[in-house]
Amino acid sequence: MTYGTVEPFFHQGGFVRVVQKFGGSSVADAESIKRVAKRIVDTKEQGNEVTVVVSAMGDTTDELLDLAQRVSPKPRSRELDMLLSAGERMSAALLAMAINDLGHTARSFTGSQAGVITTAKHGDARIIDITPGRIETALGDGDIVIVAGFQGVSQSTKDVTTLGRGASDTTAVALASALKADYCEIYSDVDGVFTADPRVVPGAQQIPEIAFEEMMELAANGAKILHLRCVEYARRENVPVHVRSSFSDKPGTWLKDASDIKKKESGMENPIITGVAQDKALAKVTVVDVPDRPGEAAQVLETVAGAGINIDTITQNQSVSDDTTAITFTVPQGDLTKALDALAAARESIGFSKTLSDDSVGKVSIVGVGMRTTPGVAATFFKALADADVNIQLISTSEIRISVVIAEGDVDKAVRAAHTAFGLDGSDAAVVYAGTGR
Amino acid sequence: MTYGTVEPFFHQGGFVRVVQKFGGSSVADAESIKRVAKRIVDTKEQGNEVTVVVSAMGDTTDELLDLAQRVSPKPRSRELDMLLSAGERMSAALLAMAINDLGHTARSFTGSQAGVITTAKHGDARIIDITPGRIETALGDGDIVIVAGFQGVSQSTKDVTTLGRGASDTTAVALASALKADYCEIYSDVDGVFTADPRVVPGAQQIPEIAFEEMMELAANGAKILHLRCVEYARRENVPVHVRSSFSDKPGTWLKDASDIKKKESGMENPIITGVAQDKALAKVTVVDVPDRPGEAAQVLETVAGAGINIDTITQNQSVSDDTTAITFTVPQGDLTKALDALAAARESIGFSKTLSDDSVGKVSIVGVGMRTTPGVAATFFKALADADVNIQLISTSEIRISVVIAEGDVDKAVRAAHTAFGLDGSDAAVVYAGTGR
Repeated sequence: MTYGTVEPFFHQGGFVRVVQKFGGSSVADAESIKRVAKRIVDTKEQGNEVTVVVSAMGDTTDELLDLAQRVSPKPRSRELDMLLSAGERMSAALLAMAINDLGHTARSFTGSQAGVITTAKHGDARIIDITPGRIETALGDGDIVIVAGFQGVSQSTKDVTTLGRGASDTTAVALASALKADYCEIYSDVDGVFTADPRVVPGAQQIPEIAFEEMMELAANGAKILHLRCVEYARRENVPVHVRSSFSDKPGTWLKDASDIKKKESGMENPIITGVAQDKALAKVTVVDVPDRPGEAAQVLETVAGAGINIDTITQNQSVSDDTTAITFTVPQGDLTKALDALAAARESIGFSKTLSDDSVGKVSIVGVGMRTTPGVAATFFKALADADVNIQLISTSEIRISVVIAEGDVDKAVRAAHTAFGLDGSDAAVVYAGTGR
Repeated sequence: MTYGTVEPFFHQGGFVRVVQKFGGSSVADAESIKRVAKRIVDTKEQGNEVTVVVSAMGDTTDELLDLAQRVSPKPRSRELDMLLSAGERMSAALLAMAINDLGHTARSFTGSQAGVITTAKHGDARIIDITPGRIETALGDGDIVIVAGFQGVSQSTKDVTTLGRGASDTTAVALASALKADYCEIYSDVDGVFTADPRVVPGAQQIPEIAFEEMMELAANGAKILHLRCVEYARRENVPVHVRSSFSDKPGTWLKDASDIKKKESGMENPIITGVAQDKALAKVTVVDVPDRPGEAAQVLETVAGAGINIDTITQNQSVSDDTTAITFTVPQGDLTKALDALAAARESIGFSKTLSDDSVGKVSIVGVGMRTTPGVAATFFKALADADVNIQLISTSEIRISVVIAEGDVDKAVRAAHTAFGLDGSDAAVVYAGTGR
């Protein structure tokens, strides 16, 4: 059988060098580990060089966090990293054992042994460099390499670091780049990237190929398939990424450079819009009567950001009556109170009159490189929303994205309306979307 | 309070450098870990430099072994070591967290980070060298060092190795030697070394000080307090070892070079015999009519040893009737069948007539350096056994030990008889002996 992992256009010689990443839900128990081992061996037996990045089993990381909490209310991050990194170490060793039983030789490596060099920021370290000497040696010996994801070693302190939740994807892409792999496969419990969340849009279709920049916009605007950092890394290093399910053999979604995407190949009409993303649980804050002087807006936003709050969609409107402005932005619902408190504390110094807030708004974004060359996309989008009786509160755009902030209760119907308006509805309903497995 | 860890005769300057080892039962859960952390901090606050070796929490190692079994019937040892070593890594990190909460800085290190260099024999690696550079740096910074026990890194392959079950004790003693520590404390759930197993002899007394060679004889003849390897290492490197309970503050038993043991100090009369050890669950095998030619005995023993069976007490008797001999030895009860099968297979080539066996014998050993200079010890021992109506089947001796093989059912009364005969009975009954915690 083929997983589409040997598509000819990737061949660069006698074999393909591939990096595969399996999430925690794919190795949740002994049986899952054996099944994944079989899949890895199949890829190897197709003549490929295989390096695998694995996450911790199922809920291991959360269980270790609970254990840490029972021992220490606020565990030191260096020690927390030492504790948590054990999870991937265990799953990597177990996966290697299962592969060895299938007649192949697998060698597991910790992040440190794999040469994953990071910054010293425990719990959220960044990959500085990868020196895959031991991996190259193992691959040279014809072995299958298993790397514990999510971890590395600090360049400065030589201590064990973790890269933050979900960073096993980034580890895989970074390794693929360092190993000059032909591509990277991210296995989870979803079939790939869809034109919309199938739980919301039954007619949502799987996207065969998507441009890195489109995936970045989707990830940044609510799509939970891949972490933004991973997509950014793949784009920067131009590593083709195949997002697919470890529970089926169906091809998934390929992330590629826009120039590598062959049109018409997918069987769908070339869509102007590639996908519709949604982000619920947002809150809207409007700061009224901000003196319209340079730097005032910056003060407002810095005040909120200073409270560690992630600010999204920002708009500023000149007041017609006097020379003040109103600044409006969105924040995660859970951060609304914190944001309002921070603003109240800075009210005197900034000199605005009051704040207005709405604790239940959402965002709907349409994304597609086709937008660049197609006029009237915004008009089509807004008309679809109007026909669906959805009132637009804020608008923000990028070169390949248009986002609207609307009432939280309108998000689902807005997504469906946009999906239909841009001809993305498929004939047969997509499989049920089961979360990201990360 | 004092744990006796700062006894003046150990002072070698302004502070004492100590290595403490805590077994799995001492760190079985979050509460135990916090309690151990408190004890470590107390030692530190007495002005000591503290390095701690910790085992995996409670049954973690067995649980990981079960998990491995579910994934692979015969896991490759390299991967099993990668898996199992995660257990100590977790307990070390958790212990460091708990210490940090008490206002001290603790740094946990894996065996590899701690510089524990071993052979490449996975599952049963031996320590070749310890390069404690990172530990020295941490101690120099005033930190408390926590080292994951039971593990190291292979000098040749750079892979993670484990030292075999119970080897955390050996790790601690080896570290104490490499760090030139003043002494090493082994904490478990027993109060120390007793003159006999208190479960058998209510009047057994704790031994304040015992010579390395005596402890080696006790460990080699059934005492489960410390692993023989650990005691051998301590003796070779002359590292004083303090065996004590992590559940009380009472001083335990000091293992020292015989020349460092101050007589009369203990309050007991200087005993000729330091302790009585017992070893049940043995089987006795007699090979009859072995041709009395050089090398025949060796053939018999090699045949059994070749089956991977550990042979104990060996005796050979010249037959009076003809020129054949009978060779008798003991093996663990569980290995009896295997031993008899191996012998049966080699019967022709060796040329003996038959084997006799007894599947329920035991061994009682009296140990004491006092033996060297005291005549009549054997006579006293044998008379005590005779008075107790215990029939001696085999006898073996060393310079400081006399062992007898007897019926398994006679072991307990033989131990009590010997204990009384050599004046070891204490006035007040010892605390109940609670296993070794390893």
